[in-house]
This record gives sequence, C-alpha cells and structure tokens, in this order.
Amino acid sequence: MIYLLDLFGTAVFAMSGALAAGRKQMDLFGVLVLAIVTAIGGGTLRDLTLGLTPVFWVIDPLYIWVACSAGLLTLVLARIHWLHRGVLPVADALGLATFCVIGAERALAAGVDPALAVLMGVMTGVVGGMIRDLLCGEVPLVLRRELYATAALFGALLTVVLADWLPAGMATWIGLLGALALRLAAMHWKLSLPVFTHDTALRGRGRARDSDEDADKP
Amino acid sequence: MIYLLDLFGTAVFAMSGALAAGRKQMDLFGVLVLAIVTAIGGGTLRDLTLGLTPVFWVIDPLYIWVACSAGLLTLVLARIHWLHRGVLPVADALGLATFCVIGAERALAAGVDPALAVLMGVMTGVVGGMIRDLLCGEVPLVLRRELYATAALFGALLTVVLADWLPAGMATWIGLLGALALRLAAMHWKLSLPVFTHDTALRGRGRARDSDEDADKP
Amino acid sequence: MIYLLDLFGTAVFAMSGALAAGRKQMDLFGVLVLAIVTAIGGGTLRDLTLGLTPVFWVIDPLYIWVACSAGLLTLVLARIHWLHRGVLPVADALGLATFCVIGAERALAAGVDPALAVLMGVMTGVVGGMIRDLLCGEVPLVLRRELYATAALFGALLTVVLADWLPAGMATWIGLLGALALRLAAMHWKLSLPVFTHDTALRGRGRARDSDEDADKP
Repeated sequence: MIYLLDLFGTAVFAMSGALAAGRKQMDLFGVLVLAIVTAIGGGTLRDLTLGLTPVFWVIDPLYIWVACSAGLLTLVLARIHWLHRGVLPVADALGLATFCVIGAERALAAGVDPALAVLMGVMTGVVGGMIRDLLCGEVPLVLRRELYATAALFGALLTVVLADWLPAGMATWIGLLGALALRLAAMHWKLSLPVFTHDTALRGRGRARDSDEDADKP
Repeated sequence: MIYLLDLFGTAVFAMSGALAAGRKQMDLFGVLVLAIVTAIGGGTLRDLTLGLTPVFWVIDPLYIWVACSAGLLTLVLARIHWLHRGVLPVADALGLATFCVIGAERALAAGVDPALAVLMGVMTGVVGGMIRDLLCGEVPLVLRRELYATAALFGALLTVVLADWLPAGMATWIGLLGALALRLAAMHWKLSLPVFTHDTALRGRGRARDSDEDADKP
Repeated sequence: MIYLLDLFGTAVFAMSGALAAGRKQMDLFGVLVLAIVTAIGGGTLRDLTLGLTPVFWVIDPLYIWVACSAGLLTLVLARIHWLHRGVLPVADALGLATFCVIGAERALAAGVDPALAVLMGVMTGVVGGMIRDLLCGEVPLVLRRELYATAALFGALLTVVLADWLPAGMATWIGLLGALALRLAAMHWKLSLPVFTHDTALRGRGRARDSDEDADKP
C-alpha cells in the first residue's frame, strides 16, 4: 500500500516536473529529464548520503518508468485546464506527504539518529522540486513558499517520534495524514512562515546598502 | 582504443566548459572548475548512483589532468576563430558519442537492467553540460537543443541492444558511430524534437494565464 | 582542536548561507536550507566521490545542529552592522582555511593520490558556497573572485606536500595558516587572478560574434 502511494507520489512529482518543462518551452527530452529529476531527485540524494547504493531506482527501475510515463501523459493532460487548478496541487500534497514519510522511514531503517531521519524525510520531499526549479533557471520556490517544506518536516517528525510508541505502519499513516493535512490547510488559508530579510536592518542607508551586500558576501 | 577515445571526450568536454567560463568572464580558477565539471560531471553522477565508489576519476586521476590541461589549452586556442566554428562542434559530437557508449557499458558491467544502462549512457553524456550551464546561470541548453540528448540515447540504446548479439567491442563501435552520425546529421540539417508548451492550450485567456501558472506550480 | 575549528568553520559557512537567504527574502525554512547546504555541501561531495558513505554528517549529526543553530543565530546577528563589515569576512577566511586543510587530510587518509587530495581540499572549501549561490539564482561568486579558491588550493597543497616531511598535525597547521594568510592578504590588497575572456579575440566583429557564441556552445 505504501509502495503504491510511493509510485503515485513519483507520478505526481514527475507531472509537476513536466509542467515546469512546458512553461520553459523545452523539447520532449527536456520534459522527460525534468519529470525524472523532480520525481527521484530527493530520494537519490537521501540514498547517496546514507550510503544506500546503488540507489533505489537502480534497484527497482519501475520508478523511472512511472516517472517517464507520467511525464509523457502530462503532454496530453496539460490541455485540461481544471486539472492544473484543482487536482494537481492536491495530488502534489499527497505526493509530498508520502515522500517525507517514506524518506524518514528509510533513514530509520538504515539506523541513523532520529533527528537525522527527520532531515532525510524533508530532503526526500523537497530536493526533487529544488533541482527542477534550478534546471528551469529559477530560485527554488520551496525556499519561499507557504508551509511546503514545513509540512514535510511535520510529517517526518510525527513518523519518527511515533515510531517508538505505535505498532509498525501506524506511525507512517499518522505522519502521512499529518503532513497532508498541514499542506492542504496551508494551501487553503495561504499560511506561510515569516520571511527573513536583514535588509530591513539597513533600511534608510540608501545606496550604501549595495556595497555592504557585496562586502558581507563571502 | 576506447580508453583513448574516453580521454579525448574528456578533453573536448573540458574545452566546452572552459569556453563557457570565458563567455562569463570567469578567472583562471573558474575556467578550471568549469572544464573539470563539464568533463567528469556525467560520469561522476553515473558512478555515484550505481554505487561504484570511489568514482572513476578518484581511481584514475588522469581524467582530472586531461580536463585541466584541456581547460588551460583552451585559453590559448580560444583565439583561433575557425576552431570554434568548425572543429569544436564535431569534436564535441565525438565526445558525446564516446561518453554515452562508455556510460552504457559501465552500467551493463555493473549488472543493472538494460533499460537502466541506456539511461546511464544518456546521463554520462549530458549531465556534465547541464551542470556547466547551471554554473553559468543558464537554463541547460541540452534540454532544448537539436537532438543532442537524443543522439546519446540512440547510441546507448544501440550499444545495449546489440551487446547480446555481437562479439564484445563490436556493439560499442556501432553505438558510437550511430550516436555520432545522428548528432552530425542533426547539426547539419538542424533537426530537432518538437517543443512542448502547454501554454498553447491556454492561449487567448490573456492575463488570467499568469495566475494559472503560479497556481499549478507545486 | 582541529575538530573544534571544523565546527567553527561549519558555523561561519552556515551564517554566510543564512545571510544569502536573507538577501533573497527567503522564509525561515529557506534560511535553514541555505545554512545547512553552504556548511556541509563541500564535505558531502568529497565524501560521496571518495566513497566514504554514509557521509560525515550522517555519522556525526552535530554538524547539522551547528549549522542550524548558526543559521538561526544569524536572524538575530544580521541586525548588527559592524558584524557584516568586519568580523564575518575574516571568520569566513578562517572557515575556508580549515575546510580545505581538513578536506585534504581526509582524502589522504582515504589513501588517494596526493594531487587528488589537493583537489578534494579545494572542493571541500568552495562547493558549499557554489551551491548556495546556485540556489540563490546567481553565478557562483567563487568562480570570479579575488583568490578565494586559490587560497584553498594553496592551503591544501601545503598540507599535502608537507605531510610527508613533518610530524603529524604540523603540516595541517601550516596549511591552515598559509590559506588564511593568502586569503586575508587577497582581501586586504584586493588581489585577484586574471580574467579569461575569449571575446577579446573576437572583438570588432560586431553582431557576427553572437552567432559564433551559439555555434561553439556544444
């Protein structure tokens, strides 16, 4: 069941990658690259840093096929307008919730520190989207959006904390639902974290600010 | 012989990296970084995901030396105009053909699924150039250019399919020549894949389109 | 002692990442991501390519905690103006010097070629900052700045060369001080490497140049 959700998350993330490729007018190959990278980027970095090599999609290439198929399917589905608007964001939230929980579990199974397992869960959820945005020449949206990564953090945290107290599987589902609920709530009420800008501290100094910025850039 | 071609491909890719650094007015260090990254980026990601660590250039540092030397040599050769125009693109096509074939073979030797070996071949050929473009602050050209990655795909596919039927070495050469031929043909006749843009489906909605774009960006 | 310096370097690099996030008006999560990535990016790539997995911060998560704490601390400290101007750049130079020396040592301990150990030292020092700049949507400054990477190269080179001749520990300190001295000198006298631009060779050809640029971009 979790495996099916994982494949579903892979497909949804691949579609978000393919849509991004479409916005940048890439060709068919670009669409496939963005689809694959978005879908498996986070899990790949997790496996690499944990030393779990070969990485998951080398062991089970079905992930690649799902990502490619979802990318190609997007070429057709992209014409359907209500899909962008209503269905995809919700599906994406479900994909995020699945990925963060699975990432945290895989890290726990590899025997790492619980806090690190939370970090791995977040990484699994957000790194694919970050690489997608980089390849599109944009500052990753996840770094400045309404509770996207925070939802992943919440789900991974729930899973890791509850893993000691509840029967196996249970913690996973609660974490997944927690992340999903927080993400949907954030989308609905447009919740977001406060923005940090140290420029406010320097306001009113006019042009001098620009040289300061260069000065403190190491 | 294949090893020599591999070093040749490394040198050519390093030159393309160094030229990109020159276009961005980087200093000597930037030239070397771009040269190295372009030359070994694809192979490094292949080895990492396959779990073949330490990666190839740690085991055989000659690759690094070749990339550095080619980068430095470019500082001199860049003054020669006909080189940019005529020789480098052809040499680059040869480098691409070599890399995709070698990448596919190395993956097959590691015992992965044949379809995955094709993917690894493409990755070996194009990832270096993608990182080069990212470091230059550009959307990777390979995502929207005339049959560049497609040529790598064709070569890797030929190699993997024929590896079962032909004596060792033979499949490699046919794959290499296939990729080279397709790439040169694409350059000559300016062949390219169709561009995907889902904006066409939304055309005529005017300004409303912009907010849609943000909405479906997950 | 070296371990403490390593944690100090981690904290300083994390602060530079958090400041960059502030300049881009990222939210709290973005600040933490940039802090972590800048602090551990170089060491992570070093460990991955050397095959030393799980990577250092999975084995010793204290690095992550230090990076997070330093990132959060930056939210407060960023208001203090003289810190940007005077203290941070010097601290950053110390962090760079520590990282390049530690990276070179770790590579030597893994038994690689000495020349490669130097490369690994430089990588440990500069890759974190490069990823930071990429995530901020900028061409990495390290590719075109006054003797930043060169200082790392100098320190790593000293460490590796002297490691054969001096008692253990001694080479490390000399390398560290060498890198620090060169970096501080470069900051003080604004020393830099010559910039490479092959456009000068093409100057005076007017518009024709633009198509050349596309032509030699492989």
